[in-house]
Amino acid sequence: MTAAAPEVKKLYISYNNIHKLCQETAEKLKAESNKPDIIIAIGGGGFIPARILRSFIREQGEKNIPIQAIGLSLYESMGNNSTIDTIGKEVVRTQWLDFGAIDKHFDTLIGKKILIVDEVDDTRTTLYYALTELKKDVRNQAIKLGRSDEKTIFSVFVLHNKDKPKKEDLPKELMDSGRYLAARTVPDIWIAYPWDASDIDYHTEMAKTQGNI
Amino acid sequence: MTAAAPEVKKLYISYNNIHKLCQETAEKLKAESNKPDIIIAIGGGGFIPARILRSFIREQGEKNIPIQAIGLSLYESMGNNSTIDTIGKEVVRTQWLDFGAIDKHFDTLIGKKILIVDEVDDTRTTLYYALTELKKDVRNQAIKLGRSDEKTIFSVFVLHNKDKPKKEDLPKELMDSGRYLAARTVPDIWIAYPWDASDIDYHTEMAKTQGNI
Repeated sequence: MTAAAPEVKKLYISYNNIHKLCQETAEKLKAESNKPDIIIAIGGGGFIPARILRSFIREQGEKNIPIQAIGLSLYESMGNNSTIDTIGKEVVRTQWLDFGAIDKHFDTLIGKKILIVDEVDDTRTTLYYALTELKKDVRNQAIKLGRSDEKTIFSVFVLHNKDKPKKEDLPKELMDSGRYLAARTVPDIWIAYPWDASDIDYHTEMAKTQGNI
Repeated sequence: MTAAAPEVKKLYISYNNIHKLCQETAEKLKAESNKPDIIIAIGGGGFIPARILRSFIREQGEKNIPIQAIGLSLYESMGNNSTIDTIGKEVVRTQWLDFGAIDKHFDTLIGKKILIVDEVDDTRTTLYYALTELKKDVRNQAIKLGRSDEKTIFSVFVLHNKDKPKKEDLPKELMDSGRYLAARTVPDIWIAYPWDASDIDYHTEMAKTQGNI
Protein backbone atom coordinates (compact mmCIF):
# COMPACT_ATOMS: atom_id res chain seq x y z
CA MET A 1 0.00 0.00 0.00
CA THR A 2 3.03 2.29 -0.23
CA ALA A 3 3.84 4.40 -3.25
CA ALA A 4 5.20 2.43 -6.15
CA ALA A 5 8.91 1.87 -6.30
CA PRO A 6 10.53 3.96 -9.05
CA GLU A 7 11.16 0.94 -11.30
CA VAL A 8 7.43 0.06 -11.48
CA LYS A 9 6.06 1.00 -14.90
CA LYS A 10 2.49 -0.18 -14.40
CA LEU A 11 0.78 -0.03 -11.06
CA TYR A 12 -1.67 -2.88 -10.52
CA ILE A 13 -4.47 -1.99 -8.12
CA SER A 14 -6.75 -4.68 -6.72
CA TYR A 15 -10.39 -4.20 -5.80
CA ASN A 16 -9.61 -4.99 -2.19
CA ASN A 17 -6.95 -2.32 -2.18
CA ILE A 18 -9.44 0.22 -3.51
CA HIS A 19 -11.91 -0.90 -0.86
CA LYS A 20 -9.32 -0.25 1.85
CA LEU A 21 -8.38 3.15 0.44
CA CYS A 22 -12.05 4.17 0.55
CA GLN A 23 -12.47 2.79 4.06
CA GLU A 24 -9.38 4.65 5.27
CA THR A 25 -10.59 7.89 3.69
CA ALA A 26 -14.06 7.54 5.21
CA GLU A 27 -12.50 7.16 8.66
CA LYS A 28 -10.44 10.27 8.03
CA LEU A 29 -13.48 12.27 6.91
CA LYS A 30 -15.40 11.20 10.00
CA ALA A 31 -12.49 11.88 12.37
CA GLU A 32 -12.10 15.37 10.96
CA SER A 33 -15.86 16.12 11.11
CA ASN A 34 -15.80 16.48 7.37
CA LYS A 35 -18.45 13.89 6.63
CA PRO A 36 -20.24 14.76 3.40
CA ASP A 37 -23.99 15.28 3.18
CA ILE A 38 -23.88 14.20 -0.44
CA ILE A 39 -21.41 12.44 -2.73
CA ILE A 40 -21.05 13.45 -6.35
CA ALA A 41 -19.50 10.63 -8.38
CA ILE A 42 -17.78 11.50 -11.62
CA GLY A 43 -18.62 8.64 -13.97
CA GLY A 44 -17.43 6.13 -15.00
CA GLY A 45 -14.25 6.14 -12.81
CA GLY A 46 -15.83 7.65 -9.73
CA PHE A 47 -18.74 5.19 -9.52
CA ILE A 48 -16.85 2.41 -7.78
CA PRO A 49 -14.99 4.46 -5.14
CA ALA A 50 -18.15 6.52 -4.49
CA ARG A 51 -20.25 3.44 -3.81
CA ILE A 52 -17.63 1.86 -1.55
CA LEU A 53 -17.00 5.11 0.32
CA ARG A 54 -20.69 5.44 1.07
CA SER A 55 -20.70 2.22 3.11
CA PHE A 56 -18.12 3.59 5.50
CA ILE A 57 -19.36 7.13 5.82
CA ARG A 58 -22.71 6.09 7.12
CA GLU A 59 -22.86 5.78 10.91
CA GLN A 60 -24.94 3.00 12.40
CA GLY A 61 -28.64 3.74 12.20
CA GLU A 62 -28.14 6.60 9.78
CA LYS A 63 -29.65 6.84 6.33
CA ASN A 64 -27.50 6.26 3.27
CA ILE A 65 -25.61 9.30 2.08
CA PRO A 66 -27.09 10.15 -1.33
CA ILE A 67 -24.88 9.71 -4.38
CA GLN A 68 -25.49 11.82 -7.45
CA ALA A 69 -23.66 10.85 -10.61
CA ILE A 70 -22.29 13.17 -13.23
CA GLY A 71 -20.72 12.05 -16.49
CA LEU A 72 -17.68 13.85 -17.80
CA SER A 73 -15.52 12.82 -20.70
CA LEU A 74 -12.32 14.33 -21.94
CA TYR A 75 -12.17 14.62 -25.70
CA GLU A 76 -9.42 15.96 -27.89
CA SER A 77 -10.57 19.33 -29.10
CA MET A 78 -10.11 19.49 -32.83
CA GLY A 79 -9.25 22.99 -33.89
CA ASN A 80 -8.39 23.34 -37.58
CA ASN A 81 -5.16 25.06 -36.67
CA SER A 82 -4.19 22.55 -34.03
CA THR A 83 -0.58 22.58 -33.05
CA ILE A 84 1.05 20.92 -30.09
CA ASP A 85 0.40 24.13 -28.17
CA THR A 86 -3.26 24.47 -28.97
CA ILE A 87 -4.37 20.84 -28.98
CA GLY A 88 -6.26 20.48 -25.78
CA LYS A 89 -8.76 18.32 -24.05
CA GLU A 90 -12.32 19.44 -23.91
CA VAL A 91 -14.61 18.35 -21.11
CA VAL A 92 -17.96 17.06 -22.35
CA ARG A 93 -20.89 16.65 -19.97
CA THR A 94 -22.71 13.40 -20.61
CA GLN A 95 -24.82 13.68 -17.47
CA TRP A 96 -25.35 16.40 -14.93
CA LEU A 97 -27.03 16.63 -11.52
CA ASP A 98 -30.75 16.12 -11.26
CA PHE A 99 -31.58 19.33 -9.43
CA GLY A 100 -35.29 18.53 -9.48
CA ALA A 101 -34.75 15.40 -7.40
CA ILE A 102 -32.10 17.03 -5.19
CA ASP A 103 -34.34 19.97 -4.36
CA LYS A 104 -37.29 17.70 -3.68
CA HIS A 105 -35.58 15.16 -1.43
CA PHE A 106 -32.69 17.16 -0.14
CA ASP A 107 -33.61 20.83 0.10
CA THR A 108 -30.99 21.93 -2.47
CA LEU A 109 -27.18 21.72 -2.24
CA ILE A 110 -26.95 25.14 -0.59
CA GLY A 111 -25.03 24.99 2.68
CA LYS A 112 -24.24 21.29 2.28
CA LYS A 113 -20.97 19.40 2.55
CA ILE A 114 -20.41 18.05 -0.94
CA LEU A 115 -17.75 15.47 -1.77
CA ILE A 116 -16.71 15.08 -5.42
CA VAL A 117 -15.29 11.61 -6.14
CA ASP A 118 -13.19 10.35 -9.03
CA GLU A 119 -10.71 7.51 -9.40
CA VAL A 120 -7.62 9.42 -10.48
CA ASP A 121 -6.33 12.97 -10.58
CA ASP A 122 -4.25 12.99 -13.74
CA THR A 123 -4.12 16.44 -15.36
CA ARG A 124 -6.74 17.78 -12.90
CA THR A 125 -8.83 19.03 -15.86
CA THR A 126 -11.93 16.98 -15.03
CA LEU A 127 -11.87 17.77 -11.32
CA TYR A 128 -11.39 21.46 -12.05
CA TYR A 129 -14.32 21.44 -14.44
CA ALA A 130 -16.58 19.56 -12.03
CA LEU A 131 -15.75 21.77 -9.06
CA THR A 132 -16.04 25.03 -10.97
CA GLU A 133 -19.34 24.14 -12.60
CA LEU A 134 -20.89 22.72 -9.44
CA LYS A 135 -19.89 25.79 -7.43
CA LYS A 136 -21.42 28.00 -10.11
CA ASP A 137 -24.68 26.05 -10.06
CA VAL A 138 -24.99 26.23 -6.27
CA ARG A 139 -24.18 29.95 -6.26
CA ASN A 140 -26.74 30.67 -8.96
CA GLN A 141 -29.38 28.72 -7.12
CA ALA A 142 -28.62 30.55 -3.88
CA ILE A 143 -28.96 33.90 -5.65
CA LYS A 144 -32.23 32.79 -7.20
CA LEU A 145 -33.63 31.73 -3.83
CA GLY A 146 -32.21 34.71 -1.96
CA ARG A 147 -30.14 32.44 0.26
CA SER A 148 -26.47 32.51 1.21
CA ASP A 149 -24.23 29.76 -0.10
CA GLU A 150 -21.38 30.70 2.25
CA LYS A 151 -21.64 27.49 4.20
CA THR A 152 -21.51 25.21 1.15
CA ILE A 153 -18.31 23.21 1.45
CA PHE A 154 -16.81 21.29 -1.44
CA SER A 155 -14.24 18.56 -0.96
CA VAL A 156 -12.55 16.26 -3.45
CA PHE A 157 -11.60 12.60 -3.09
CA VAL A 158 -9.56 10.55 -5.52
CA LEU A 159 -7.97 7.14 -5.07
CA HIS A 160 -4.75 8.25 -6.74
CA ASN A 161 -3.15 11.57 -7.46
CA LYS A 162 -0.45 11.43 -10.09
CA ASP A 163 2.56 13.46 -9.08
CA LYS A 164 2.95 15.54 -12.25
CA PRO A 165 2.39 19.07 -13.51
CA LYS A 166 -1.34 19.77 -13.63
CA LYS A 167 -3.17 21.63 -16.38
CA GLU A 168 -5.57 23.24 -13.91
CA ASP A 169 -5.34 24.27 -10.27
CA LEU A 170 -7.96 23.64 -7.63
CA PRO A 171 -8.55 26.55 -5.23
CA LYS A 172 -5.64 27.07 -2.83
CA GLU A 173 -8.06 27.26 0.07
CA LEU A 174 -9.41 23.78 -0.73
CA MET A 175 -5.91 22.31 -1.12
CA ASP A 176 -4.61 23.93 2.08
CA SER A 177 -7.54 23.02 4.30
CA GLY A 178 -7.37 19.26 3.87
CA ARG A 179 -10.37 19.14 1.59
CA TYR A 180 -8.38 17.63 -1.24
CA LEU A 181 -8.07 13.97 -0.33
CA ALA A 182 -5.94 11.68 -2.45
CA ALA A 183 -5.71 8.27 -0.80
CA ARG A 184 -2.33 7.76 -2.48
CA THR A 185 0.02 9.99 -4.42
CA VAL A 186 1.83 8.00 -7.08
CA PRO A 187 4.43 8.71 -9.77
CA ASP A 188 3.22 9.55 -13.26
CA ILE A 189 2.91 5.95 -14.41
CA TRP A 190 0.19 3.71 -15.78
CA ILE A 191 -2.35 2.86 -13.10
CA ALA A 192 -4.10 -0.39 -13.98
CA TYR A 193 -7.46 -0.37 -12.26
CA PRO A 194 -9.11 -3.74 -11.70
CA TRP A 195 -12.29 -2.94 -13.63
CA ASP A 196 -10.26 -2.87 -16.86
CA ALA A 197 -8.52 -6.20 -16.22
CA SER A 198 -9.22 -8.92 -18.76
CA ASP A 199 -7.69 -11.48 -16.38
CA ILE A 200 -8.63 -10.41 -12.87
CA ASP A 201 -6.84 -13.29 -11.15
CA TYR A 202 -3.55 -12.39 -12.82
CA HIS A 203 -4.21 -8.71 -12.14
CA THR A 204 -4.82 -9.41 -8.44
CA GLU A 205 -1.62 -11.47 -8.24
CA MET A 206 0.35 -8.62 -9.78
CA ALA A 207 -1.23 -6.15 -7.35
CA LYS A 208 -0.23 -8.49 -4.53
CA THR A 209 3.41 -8.59 -5.63
CA GLN A 210 3.38 -4.77 -5.69
CA GLY A 211 1.77 -4.58 -2.26
CA ASN A 212 -1.47 -3.04 -3.53
CA ILE A 213 -3.76 -5.62 -2.03
CA MET B 1 -19.27 -19.73 -8.76
CA THR B 2 -22.17 -22.16 -8.42
CA ALA B 3 -25.38 -21.38 -6.59
CA ALA B 4 -25.08 -21.48 -2.82
CA ALA B 5 -25.58 -24.79 -1.08
CA PRO B 6 -28.89 -24.91 0.81
CA GLU B 7 -27.24 -24.68 4.22
CA VAL B 8 -25.55 -21.38 3.40
CA LYS B 9 -27.29 -18.55 5.26
CA LYS B 10 -25.17 -15.69 4.05
CA LEU B 11 -23.63 -15.63 0.62
CA TYR B 12 -20.26 -13.86 0.52
CA ILE B 13 -19.46 -12.38 -2.88
CA SER B 14 -15.96 -11.14 -3.66
CA TYR B 15 -15.13 -8.26 -5.97
CA ASN B 16 -13.27 -10.61 -8.29
CA ASN B 17 -16.34 -12.81 -8.50
CA ILE B 18 -18.48 -9.82 -9.47
CA HIS B 19 -15.86 -8.87 -12.03
CA LYS B 20 -16.08 -12.35 -13.59
CA LEU B 21 -19.89 -12.32 -13.60
CA CYS B 22 -19.83 -9.02 -15.50
CA GLN B 23 -17.18 -10.29 -17.91
CA GLU B 24 -19.16 -13.46 -18.58
CA THR B 25 -22.36 -11.46 -19.17
CA ALA B 26 -20.61 -9.06 -21.54
CA GLU B 27 -19.37 -12.00 -23.62
CA LYS B 28 -22.90 -13.36 -23.72
CA LEU B 29 -24.35 -10.00 -24.81
CA LYS B 30 -21.76 -9.73 -27.56
CA ALA B 31 -22.22 -13.32 -28.73
CA GLU B 32 -25.98 -12.80 -28.99
CA SER B 33 -25.64 -9.48 -30.83
CA ASN B 34 -27.36 -7.85 -27.92
CA LYS B 35 -24.63 -5.34 -27.18
CA PRO B 36 -26.17 -2.25 -25.56
CA ASP B 37 -25.77 1.23 -26.99
CA ILE B 38 -26.19 2.68 -23.52
CA ILE B 39 -26.08 1.36 -19.97
CA ILE B 40 -28.42 2.72 -17.32
CA ALA B 41 -27.04 2.04 -13.85
CA ILE B 42 -29.45 1.99 -10.95
CA GLY B 43 -27.54 3.57 -8.06
CA GLY B 44 -25.99 2.80 -5.68
CA GLY B 45 -25.97 -1.00 -6.28
CA GLY B 46 -25.79 -0.85 -10.06
CA PHE B 47 -22.79 1.51 -10.21
CA ILE B 48 -20.14 -1.16 -9.71
CA PRO B 49 -21.46 -3.86 -12.08
CA ALA B 50 -22.27 -1.18 -14.70
CA ARG B 51 -18.74 0.20 -14.64
CA ILE B 52 -17.15 -3.25 -14.84
CA LEU B 53 -19.50 -4.42 -17.57
CA ARG B 54 -18.60 -1.42 -19.69
CA SER B 55 -14.96 -2.53 -19.93
CA PHE B 56 -15.92 -5.80 -21.53
CA ILE B 57 -18.68 -4.61 -23.82
CA ARG B 58 -16.41 -2.25 -25.65
CA GLU B 59 -14.68 -3.82 -28.65
CA GLN B 60 -11.12 -2.81 -29.40
CA GLY B 61 -10.93 0.63 -30.96
CA GLU B 62 -14.51 1.46 -30.08
CA LYS B 63 -15.64 4.35 -27.94
CA ASN B 64 -16.81 3.74 -24.37
CA ILE B 65 -20.45 2.78 -24.05
CA PRO B 66 -22.09 5.68 -22.21
CA ILE B 67 -23.38 5.01 -18.71
CA GLN B 68 -26.26 7.06 -17.36
CA ALA B 69 -27.02 6.76 -13.68
CA ILE B 70 -30.40 6.84 -12.06
CA GLY B 71 -31.01 6.81 -8.33
CA LEU B 72 -33.88 4.79 -6.92
CA SER B 73 -34.57 4.06 -3.29
CA LEU B 74 -37.19 1.85 -1.74
CA TYR B 75 -38.85 3.43 1.25
CA GLU B 76 -41.52 2.03 3.50
CA SER B 77 -44.70 3.82 2.60
CA MET B 78 -46.24 5.08 5.77
CA GLY B 79 -50.00 5.00 5.57
CA ASN B 80 -51.79 5.86 8.81
CA ASN B 81 -53.79 2.67 8.60
CA SER B 82 -50.84 0.44 7.84
CA THR B 83 -51.35 -3.23 8.38
CA ILE B 84 -49.17 -6.07 7.25
CA ASP B 85 -51.21 -6.13 4.06
CA THR B 86 -50.99 -2.49 3.20
CA ILE B 87 -47.45 -1.71 4.28
CA GLY B 88 -45.57 -1.42 1.04
CA LYS B 89 -42.40 -0.11 -0.42
CA GLU B 90 -42.46 3.07 -2.37
CA VAL B 91 -39.88 3.81 -5.05
CA VAL B 92 -38.35 7.25 -4.72
CA ARG B 93 -36.37 8.81 -7.57
CA THR B 94 -33.25 10.51 -6.30
CA GLN B 95 -31.82 11.01 -9.76
CA TRP B 96 -33.16 10.54 -13.24
CA LEU B 97 -31.69 10.56 -16.73
CA ASP B 98 -30.20 13.73 -18.10
CA PHE B 99 -32.18 13.87 -21.32
CA GLY B 100 -30.55 17.15 -22.30
CA ALA B 101 -27.13 15.53 -22.41
CA ILE B 102 -28.41 12.29 -23.96
CA ASP B 103 -30.18 14.12 -26.76
CA LYS B 104 -27.16 16.31 -27.42
CA HIS B 105 -24.48 13.61 -27.49
CA PHE B 106 -26.51 10.58 -28.35
CA ASP B 107 -29.49 11.57 -30.51
CA THR B 108 -32.08 10.43 -27.94
CA LEU B 109 -32.76 6.92 -26.63
CA ILE B 110 -35.26 6.19 -29.40
CA GLY B 111 -34.40 3.01 -31.27
CA LYS B 112 -31.43 2.25 -29.03
CA LYS B 113 -30.44 -0.92 -27.20
CA ILE B 114 -30.68 0.05 -23.53
CA LEU B 115 -29.35 -2.13 -20.73
CA ILE B 116 -30.62 -1.47 -17.20
CA VAL B 117 -28.15 -2.66 -14.55
CA ASP B 118 -28.62 -3.33 -10.85
CA GLU B 119 -26.84 -5.58 -8.38
CA VAL B 120 -29.73 -7.73 -7.18
CA ASP B 121 -33.26 -8.61 -8.20
CA ASP B 122 -34.97 -9.07 -4.86
CA THR B 123 -38.69 -8.23 -5.01
CA ARG B 124 -38.34 -6.90 -8.59
CA THR B 125 -40.01 -3.64 -7.52
CA THR B 126 -37.09 -1.37 -8.43
CA LEU B 127 -36.44 -3.03 -11.79
CA TYR B 128 -40.12 -2.88 -12.65
CA TYR B 129 -40.26 0.79 -11.78
CA ALA B 130 -37.10 1.62 -13.75
CA LEU B 131 -38.18 -0.29 -16.85
CA THR B 132 -41.74 1.04 -16.83
CA GLU B 133 -40.73 4.66 -16.34
CA LEU B 134 -37.90 4.55 -18.85
CA LYS B 135 -40.14 2.98 -21.48
CA LYS B 136 -42.73 5.66 -20.85
CA ASP B 137 -40.14 8.42 -21.23
CA VAL B 138 -38.83 7.04 -24.51
CA ARG B 139 -42.34 6.55 -25.88
CA ASN B 140 -43.35 10.09 -24.93
CA GLN B 141 -40.26 11.50 -26.55
CA ALA B 142 -40.88 9.49 -29.72
CA ILE B 143 -44.45 10.82 -29.88
CA LYS B 144 -43.21 14.37 -29.33
CA LEU B 145 -40.68 14.06 -32.13
CA GLY B 146 -43.01 12.14 -34.43
CA ARG B 147 -40.67 9.17 -34.50
CA SER B 148 -41.30 5.47 -33.95
CA ASP B 149 -39.88 3.86 -30.83
CA GLU B 150 -40.56 0.34 -32.10
CA LYS B 151 -36.90 -0.51 -32.36
CA THR B 152 -36.03 0.58 -28.83
CA ILE B 153 -34.92 -2.55 -27.00
CA PHE B 154 -34.66 -2.74 -23.23
CA SER B 155 -32.69 -5.44 -21.46
CA VAL B 156 -31.99 -5.98 -17.78
CA PHE B 157 -28.83 -7.24 -16.12
CA VAL B 158 -28.40 -8.11 -12.45
CA LEU B 159 -25.59 -9.98 -10.72
CA HIS B 160 -28.02 -12.04 -8.65
CA ASN B 161 -31.65 -12.94 -8.95
CA LYS B 162 -33.20 -14.18 -5.73
CA ASP B 163 -35.39 -17.20 -6.35
CA LYS B 164 -38.52 -16.01 -4.53
CA PRO B 165 -42.01 -14.71 -5.27
CA LYS B 166 -41.74 -11.28 -6.87
CA LYS B 167 -43.93 -8.28 -6.13
CA GLU B 168 -43.88 -7.14 -9.74
CA ASP B 169 -43.47 -8.87 -13.08
CA LEU B 170 -41.30 -7.75 -15.92
CA PRO B 171 -42.85 -8.08 -19.40
CA LYS B 172 -43.15 -11.71 -20.53
CA GLU B 173 -41.62 -10.82 -23.87
CA LEU B 174 -38.48 -9.50 -22.17
CA MET B 175 -38.19 -12.53 -19.90
CA ASP B 176 -38.78 -15.01 -22.73
CA SER B 177 -36.41 -13.48 -25.25
CA GLY B 178 -33.25 -13.69 -23.17
CA ARG B 179 -33.23 -10.01 -22.38
CA TYR B 180 -33.45 -10.61 -18.65
CA LEU B 181 -29.92 -11.52 -17.66
CA ALA B 182 -29.18 -12.64 -14.12
CA ALA B 183 -25.59 -13.82 -13.88
CA ARG B 184 -26.61 -16.12 -11.01
CA THR B 185 -29.92 -17.21 -9.54
CA VAL B 186 -29.59 -17.79 -5.81
CA PRO B 187 -31.87 -18.87 -2.97
CA ASP B 188 -33.61 -16.18 -0.95
CA ILE B 189 -30.74 -15.65 1.48
CA TRP B 190 -28.59 -12.74 2.57
CA ILE B 191 -26.17 -11.73 -0.17
CA ALA B 192 -23.15 -10.00 1.34
CA TYR B 193 -21.68 -7.74 -1.34
CA PRO B 194 -18.06 -6.75 -0.90
CA TRP B 195 -18.70 -2.99 -0.85
CA ASP B 196 -20.46 -3.37 2.50
CA ALA B 197 -17.68 -5.44 4.10
CA SER B 198 -16.02 -3.85 7.10
CA ASP B 199 -13.22 -6.45 6.87
CA ILE B 200 -12.67 -7.10 3.18
CA ASP B 201 -9.88 -9.66 3.73
CA TYR B 202 -12.15 -11.80 5.92
CA HIS B 203 -15.02 -11.27 3.49
CA THR B 204 -12.86 -12.43 0.57
CA GLU B 205 -11.75 -15.51 2.50
CA MET B 206 -15.38 -16.39 3.23
CA ALA B 207 -16.28 -15.90 -0.44
CA LYS B 208 -13.38 -18.18 -1.33
CA THR B 209 -14.62 -20.97 0.96
CA GLN B 210 -18.05 -20.64 -0.71
CA GLY B 211 -16.55 -20.70 -4.19
CA ASN B 212 -17.58 -17.13 -5.02
CA ILE B 213 -14.12 -15.92 -5.95
